[in-house]
Amino acid sequence: TRPSADPLDIAVIGGDGIGPEVTEQAAAVLQAALRAEGCPEARLTPYPLGAEHWLRTGEALPDETLEALRGHDAILFGAVGAAPGDERIPSGLIERGMLLRLRFELDHGVNLRPAALLPGAVSPLAEPGTIDFTVVREGTEGPYVGNGGAIRTGTPHEIATEVSVNTAHGVRRVVEDAFARAAAGERKRLTLVHKHNVLVHAGHLWRRTVEAVAADFPEVSWDYMHVDAATIFLTTDPARFDVIVTDNLFGDILTDLAAAVTGGIGLAASGNINVEGTAPSMFEPVHGSAPDIAGQGVADPVAAILSAALLLEHVGETGAAQRVRTAVWAHLKDRVDGARGSTAEVGADVAARV
Amino acid sequence: TRPSADPLDIAVIGGDGIGPEVTEQAAAVLQAALRAEGCPEARLTPYPLGAEHWLRTGEALPDETLEALRGHDAILFGAVGAAPGDERIPSGLIERGMLLRLRFELDHGVNLRPAALLPGAVSPLAEPGTIDFTVVREGTEGPYVGNGGAIRTGTPHEIATEVSVNTAHGVRRVVEDAFARAAAGERKRLTLVHKHNVLVHAGHLWRRTVEAVAADFPEVSWDYMHVDAATIFLTTDPARFDVIVTDNLFGDILTDLAAAVTGGIGLAASGNINVEGTAPSMFEPVHGSAPDIAGQGVADPVAAILSAALLLEHVGETGAAQRVRTAVWAHLKDRVDGARGSTAEVGADVAARV
Ligand SMILES: CC(C)[C@H](C(=O)O)[C@@H](O)C(=O)O
Ligand SMILES: CC(C)[C@H](C(=O)O)[C@@H](O)C(=O)O
Repeated sequence: TRPSADPLDIAVIGGDGIGPEVTEQAAAVLQAALRAEGCPEARLTPYPLGAEHWLRTGEALPDETLEALRGHDAILFGAVGAAPGDERIPSGLIERGMLLRLRFELDHGVNLRPAALLPGAVSPLAEPGTIDFTVVREGTEGPYVGNGGAIRTGTPHEIATEVSVNTAHGVRRVVEDAFARAAAGERKRLTLVHKHNVLVHAGHLWRRTVEAVAADFPEVSWDYMHVDAATIFLTTDPARFDVIVTDNLFGDILTDLAAAVTGGIGLAASGNINVEGTAPSMFEPVHGSAPDIAGQGVADPVAAILSAALLLEHVGETGAAQRVRTAVWAHLKDRVDGARGSTAEVGADVAARV
Repeated sequence: TRPSADPLDIAVIGGDGIGPEVTEQAAAVLQAALRAEGCPEARLTPYPLGAEHWLRTGEALPDETLEALRGHDAILFGAVGAAPGDERIPSGLIERGMLLRLRFELDHGVNLRPAALLPGAVSPLAEPGTIDFTVVREGTEGPYVGNGGAIRTGTPHEIATEVSVNTAHGVRRVVEDAFARAAAGERKRLTLVHKHNVLVHAGHLWRRTVEAVAADFPEVSWDYMHVDAATIFLTTDPARFDVIVTDNLFGDILTDLAAAVTGGIGLAASGNINVEGTAPSMFEPVHGSAPDIAGQGVADPVAAILSAALLLEHVGETGAAQRVRTAVWAHLKDRVDGARGSTAEVGADVAARV
């Protein structure tokens, strides 16, 4: 834990598209919250990375940049990704070469994604009920590891494989984190989501790990759900969930669905957590770079602002984190029927309320 | 194509839980529709398979049974799966040893899953709009192939892998089938769903294949969507989809979600199609064996009945297929607020209307 008199040292990666716009507002709100708590403002170091940067320099994430990033207390991240159809950038290059590389190199074993129906948010569900759950997604394994390949590419005999790699180490730490979060909450319920009737080997590792860790958390009750069934319950009865723990790919899919049922990807925040504290954690909105609305100042910065709250919480600035959340709730309550101002107006309104 | 004077020769696998109950009604409706068309009734051969059968005999799918099944025109399938928590049956054993084995051995390259908001069905979405799309799911590849393994099982050094295998052959045939279905429809739109920014090798095979096949279907317009984004659009704007083509696992996940947004898994039908005609195709409700409500006569047989309609369509009994669909629509229109009778009452009502 950081001596609280020292200013927070935060790396800021705005990225592409709406990333820089929303991150700017998130940073401003974060500073306002620290000031309101009587803390020194954070030191913010911007890092120009993303598709635009790659086009200029050919570098997705230089090794020196990665090393420099390691020195910060935390990373505030916007979004990356080329405009769809931009032929100059190979598909997925920035995502894998930069965003996923950061998650892997900085060992972000836990990808934390709270999903709550916030005040005033408009769910597409007719009867959403009280939605307030957290998806604890594994962040460094599964089919995301980049193992796989292709032979006879482009011929009628092509074979392409993707390998999902799951380790006791990686599964255990995320399951432990999820149980600890469930135990700290009120409902103390955990749901393991997987597909162990088909993905037997990975599924059994997950299941055995949950069974083992559950013994250390007798106060938490848990159940198991196949990923396909989970999509049904997320749309018909999302209120039943408390903490969901799941693998990297299922977590990717379920958290977009969770964002949708809670009123939109514009509100969903996330944290990529290094649970061992060996490298900085990274906080980012779940949404992407949204090239279609970039540069117009219309993107909703709330997801980025709530990601900054997760950052503050993670580094121990609980008071400032709570201020941000309370301010966002108050701001959202005043949004009538989901209508809101520009990116800058939303940011200024939240900052004024912290 | 079958000489139409010959009776249809259908294998019936009721399976476990509610499987036999709903399949019985589906078979009765199928016979009624054939009679109404002036066709001879189908010859129905029941095969006792499933968790119960395994407990009695230790056999999931004996080789001789598989060979016998090959001789039929088509297979009507209910559902399989042990009751959750039944410790006597290893998890997933029946699913893999029987259901998936049938899909693989009978080379069901296309898993056809229509999703429509049927009359009277109650969607959990506030504004569902007109939902009417078809998911064309690959059925014999992807992470379902059972390639993978584990070392150091049960130790802190365990590593478990799952390999997704994708071939030009398997991807091409399902993509061609999907384009042909899109071309035959009114909207002529196809959406490829994958995650090619992460699953590069498989994703690029899928993408290149769609690009190549698209050249043969200039009247069909197509786009690409990441699987995570697809869950958002399925809940916020399902009306935008016409034909979705996707891999085995993504198709599994998206079709449960599709069933949910169209008012329930109790209405979702599917066909496992052998596109080359080298083995019988198999038709089954998307829902599972639902052990919690089995034996009570309360399961909704509509998904099974609509699967029988897909069967009739597939074997060329278009008139009978249309009768079943029309009867189901009429029946559903008379369901007030989703309320309905028992399994047998629903079956009898639909049969009376064909
Ligand atoms: C951009 C992409 C690589 C990323 C992921 O798949 O993890 C995104 O969808 C997310 O959920 O953060
Ligand atoms: C029972 C299971 C193996 C199966 C699948 O995953 O394909 C089911 O979920 C389905 O969608 O038909």
